[in-house]
Amino acid sequence: MASTVNKVAHPFDKTRFDATLNRRFFYAPAFEIYGGVAGLYDYGPPGSALQANIIDQWRKHFIIEEGMLELDTTIMTPSSVFETSGHVARFADWMVKDTKTGDVLRADHLVKNVLEARLAGDREARGLAAAPPSDDKKKKKKGAKAVAVKLAGEVVKEYDTILAQLDNYDGPALGELCRKYDIRNPDTDNEVGEPQQFNLMFQSSIGPTGQHKGYLRPETAQGHFLNFNRLLEYNNGRVPFASAQIGRSFRNEISPRAGLLRVREFTMAEIEHYVDPEDKSHPRFKEVKDISIVLLDRDVQEAGSSQTRSLTIGEAVDKGVIANETLGYFVARIYLFLINIGINPQRLRFRQHMANEMAHYATDCWDAEIQNATGWTETGTPLVVRQALKEPIITEKEVPEWNKKVLGKNFKKDAAVIQQIVDSLDEPSLLKLKGELAQGSTIVKSEDGREFTLTSEVVAIERKVFKQSIREFTPNVIEPSFGLGRILYTLLEHSFWSREQDVERGVLSLPPVVAPTKVLIVPLSAREEFDPLVQEISSKLRKAGVFSRVDDSNTSIGKRYARNDELGTPFGLTIDFASIQNRTVTLRERDTTDQRIGSIDEVIATVTDLVFGAIDWDEACQRLPAYDGVQAVAE
Amino acid sequence: MASTVNKVAHPFDKTRFDATLNRRFFYAPAFEIYGGVAGLYDYGPPGSALQANIIDQWRKHFIIEEGMLELDTTIMTPSSVFETSGHVARFADWMVKDTKTGDVLRADHLVKNVLEARLAGDREARGLAAAPPSDDKKKKKKGAKAVAVKLAGEVVKEYDTILAQLDNYDGPALGELCRKYDIRNPDTDNEVGEPQQFNLMFQSSIGPTGQHKGYLRPETAQGHFLNFNRLLEYNNGRVPFASAQIGRSFRNEISPRAGLLRVREFTMAEIEHYVDPEDKSHPRFKEVKDISIVLLDRDVQEAGSSQTRSLTIGEAVDKGVIANETLGYFVARIYLFLINIGINPQRLRFRQHMANEMAHYATDCWDAEIQNATGWTETGTPLVVRQALKEPIITEKEVPEWNKKVLGKNFKKDAAVIQQIVDSLDEPSLLKLKGELAQGSTIVKSEDGREFTLTSEVVAIERKVFKQSIREFTPNVIEPSFGLGRILYTLLEHSFWSREQDVERGVLSLPPVVAPTKVLIVPLSAREEFDPLVQEISSKLRKAGVFSRVDDSNTSIGKRYARNDELGTPFGLTIDFASIQNRTVTLRERDTTDQRIGSIDEVIATVTDLVFGAIDWDEACQRLPAYDGVQAVAE
Repeated sequence: MASTVNKVAHPFDKTRFDATLNRRFFYAPAFEIYGGVAGLYDYGPPGSALQANIIDQWRKHFIIEEGMLELDTTIMTPSSVFETSGHVARFADWMVKDTKTGDVLRADHLVKNVLEARLAGDREARGLAAAPPSDDKKKKKKGAKAVAVKLAGEVVKEYDTILAQLDNYDGPALGELCRKYDIRNPDTDNEVGEPQQFNLMFQSSIGPTGQHKGYLRPETAQGHFLNFNRLLEYNNGRVPFASAQIGRSFRNEISPRAGLLRVREFTMAEIEHYVDPEDKSHPRFKEVKDISIVLLDRDVQEAGSSQTRSLTIGEAVDKGVIANETLGYFVARIYLFLINIGINPQRLRFRQHMANEMAHYATDCWDAEIQNATGWTETGTPLVVRQALKEPIITEKEVPEWNKKVLGKNFKKDAAVIQQIVDSLDEPSLLKLKGELAQGSTIVKSEDGREFTLTSEVVAIERKVFKQSIREFTPNVIEPSFGLGRILYTLLEHSFWSREQDVERGVLSLPPVVAPTKVLIVPLSAREEFDPLVQEISSKLRKAGVFSRVDDSNTSIGKRYARNDELGTPFGLTIDFASIQNRTVTLRERDTTDQRIGSIDEVIATVTDLVFGAIDWDEACQRLPAYDGVQAVAE
Repeated sequence: MASTVNKVAHPFDKTRFDATLNRRFFYAPAFEIYGGVAGLYDYGPPGSALQANIIDQWRKHFIIEEGMLELDTTIMTPSSVFETSGHVARFADWMVKDTKTGDVLRADHLVKNVLEARLAGDREARGLAAAPPSDDKKKKKKGAKAVAVKLAGEVVKEYDTILAQLDNYDGPALGELCRKYDIRNPDTDNEVGEPQQFNLMFQSSIGPTGQHKGYLRPETAQGHFLNFNRLLEYNNGRVPFASAQIGRSFRNEISPRAGLLRVREFTMAEIEHYVDPEDKSHPRFKEVKDISIVLLDRDVQEAGSSQTRSLTIGEAVDKGVIANETLGYFVARIYLFLINIGINPQRLRFRQHMANEMAHYATDCWDAEIQNATGWTETGTPLVVRQALKEPIITEKEVPEWNKKVLGKNFKKDAAVIQQIVDSLDEPSLLKLKGELAQGSTIVKSEDGREFTLTSEVVAIERKVFKQSIREFTPNVIEPSFGLGRILYTLLEHSFWSREQDVERGVLSLPPVVAPTKVLIVPLSAREEFDPLVQEISSKLRKAGVFSRVDDSNTSIGKRYARNDELGTPFGLTIDFASIQNRTVTLRERDTTDQRIGSIDEVIATVTDLVFGAIDWDEACQRLPAYDGVQAVAE
């Protein structure tokens, strides 16, 4: 039998945790040697591998399992796209400026920060214990200090009510709060001005003359919608179907200060599932309807409470808490995905957004929230129901209209070539052609250098109006969206603990399916006599599809294992003199530190089954005897 | 035995090829309904899958096989980074403006375009055939028209010499050519101004107040170099080692017009291999030294020739054509990677850059060039030798200096918490603290709300100078870089052909390892009685790790196969009434259109071995008898 382990012997220590991630280069602030830029992070080798494994699982769980259509669209986007989508006007946060220094603060963060500090000061003045870590979604490190001042009872109640609904306040309302409660910049004690909207999109310009304004996409959704017609055609004209995309997006956050939880550049995975508004049933709903989920719906929150309830997906849809089967199906699939990669199901809930909290394009939104050291936090996996496009996008463009009969008669086998040349011209060239045709004729040239004279008898260039609307097909779009950085961070937090006998020995209990390295190969020393076995085992593992690394550095085996426990490597193979003599190796499990022994091929077969989830550690222990040190062979 | 196929019955038809890729949504111009933006493309489902498969192979071939350290760094980069790297000053192309209209043209493209048109006109005037498709790396669709004017013999020679060395001209030299040969804007016949440098980086600004200038990275290299110290530490302080990164980069090209071959946003995969300048041997060189490669070195080109030679990697290094073993090893590994994903080795060569052609940071560069319909083209896989950083990067910053003894004595178990709070402060906060300490004392607050008073006895904030240099470790960096869009495009071109009996029936012979879909499941019709078998086969293939799709659309089986030949799907399984009665299915191979028959499990085992390269089609034919139609069962 496998040993048992106490993973909660020590309370979670965020300082130690952050230090470990930084030291082992899971991720680090980008441009550190230039002083850093807030909200930008680089992922090192273990962080990159963990992210790549999460993406791989996501691709299998959603794209392959559900037969979604994958896309890879551009980040740089012309301004007109975001004007149409409403982002230029409304994709913004409210900021206030310090009236004297001009420092910029995010308005909702300021209000939260100051009111919480006053409440903490009140508790202190009343002789209550120092404020406990609050259920704080946007915790700031700097800012308001608690000063021990007692508040009137009704003021405390007012502050509590404001804080519970803060996500529901708009800019003018936040401004009113600042005036009413004399909320000032805590760094300077100066008053702040009226809240102003700050657009969160990074702006740039495209081309050498600078006249084409462009934005970096803040989400990948537009790339899906603009290709809707092509996708529908690719899907043989059938709905429902889904498109999926994994890629980078950018948001110019006002003052990002929460590590990976609020960043300016992030990798996201987005799905757009297009459903018939008349039929939101889902053929695979029955597979998920008995899964039980913790929910916090809009009505409960708007009544000022945060009381969750546990329902099966089937019940939630029956009671109308979740609007329909398709939405319920995706809630369940998101839940299964998060559990599968190692998120603790006890610390996961789905919270519905309140009305003013939602993005401008949303009509309903459920957010998978995960409890971490600072409280319940958005994981960056909102499940959004998008509005139908209210107005179709209208585009006018120049289009060649062919007189096919004359074209064929005049040009015979060259007709197709000519048509291709003209059809592929851009707008300015078509306009030029139009002008020339109006004056009699024009010449077009083929790739192989031949010239053809065209007249208006053969082709006319006409201005046509095109309507683009996803409305006629699918007024409803369900958008499960995944911010991979936030998922990665909370997964790391849920996985971190310290050994009972030594708080300094941190362990990351990442499931094998996402662990950056699956197997560590540890030769007793870097001596050449171990090389052939190291090579043989590496090569056999590679063939089995198991990613391994060798650590032959000049420290004790125990230290090398401790170092790899911090990296979350689930299994270790030790090569010693017995390995050379008997062709045996020991297999170590990270969490229990149990060691078993077997022949090289037995151990490789066992560890392969472990990595691919075919067996668990208990089963492995039934296959391989315990290693008691006796099997070792002296040098 | 497998049938033989004639893949060259029809000459390559670029028009048909482009139309197929567009129609099947391998990729398409982005923002088409807004009129499009030059140089931006979206990948549809088959293009995305093909790209993901190429990336997967790349990761296995380089990162896993060579134990490289993967990174994922940010795209948005503060200006100071690219000032230090020289990109702000020198990452530019030369452009000229039309003196009357202000239209912008890339200077080297203009010269090339006009001179080639004059040479074509000369050939026409001399009664020679129309110009053949030229060996043109930057073909333009628009522009100069050939007019039949005879040129003097020595002028023809001058033009030929200029064109052969065009990549070697800088801006002033290009300006001189324009004046000397009266090169004008062919669209307007106006003169052009002096060449000016146009920086190819997209610019933006970071943060709400707009004072932090930023650029989108034009390559991922800086993300590697800035993390060099962390990577070295991660690698236990040992060199040589390599870092690797796959990600998006951006170049604001002046006038991109060559499809995927010249774009403004692209996914690239970059390796930085850090070597000891005293020892450029490579331990695995012997594994690649007998591989034969076609080379075109710098000396040959600078002598005005483009005569290639075929050498083994070992010979090339011995003769000094390739500078050292490590560079030779990477040339060979790049070659093997390209062949493995399906590039035709007969159409692949390595060309060394001439002196003025190289990027500002390079001291040597070999480019894998692939022959396609327009001639020999850079594939976006340059192998660059980077300069050592000549000057270290110097940064000054505020740093807390602790008196550990006093800290421990005064604060006991809180000492670590306090140190962590102060150590994590940013520059402005440290400066503030410094000011407060100078005036006596300061208060810091922990996450749980406790306050600690610090004096200068405990901590001092001091300004320190930091030097960042990769020089002391590794003055030499070898950078194999892969532009995935170009590789993807040339691979598609090499894979495209038409059936001998019907030129309209295009086939993409993608190797199974990169094909977007590996197996197409084709039930005779969408009738429900086939559903259980479709489900069973899909699920068994998924379990075997083979990506399949079902096509149950309402057309003939032949049409469905033809449609999937265009998508490059290598194998097809047909489910008919015999399948229901006898549990047999037929297996079809894309290129030969051969069909074999076997039991469901036999066929699944065979197709799995085919997809993973364990057997080839000949071997599959030995396992399964030919399908002759007799085995079919009538409805």
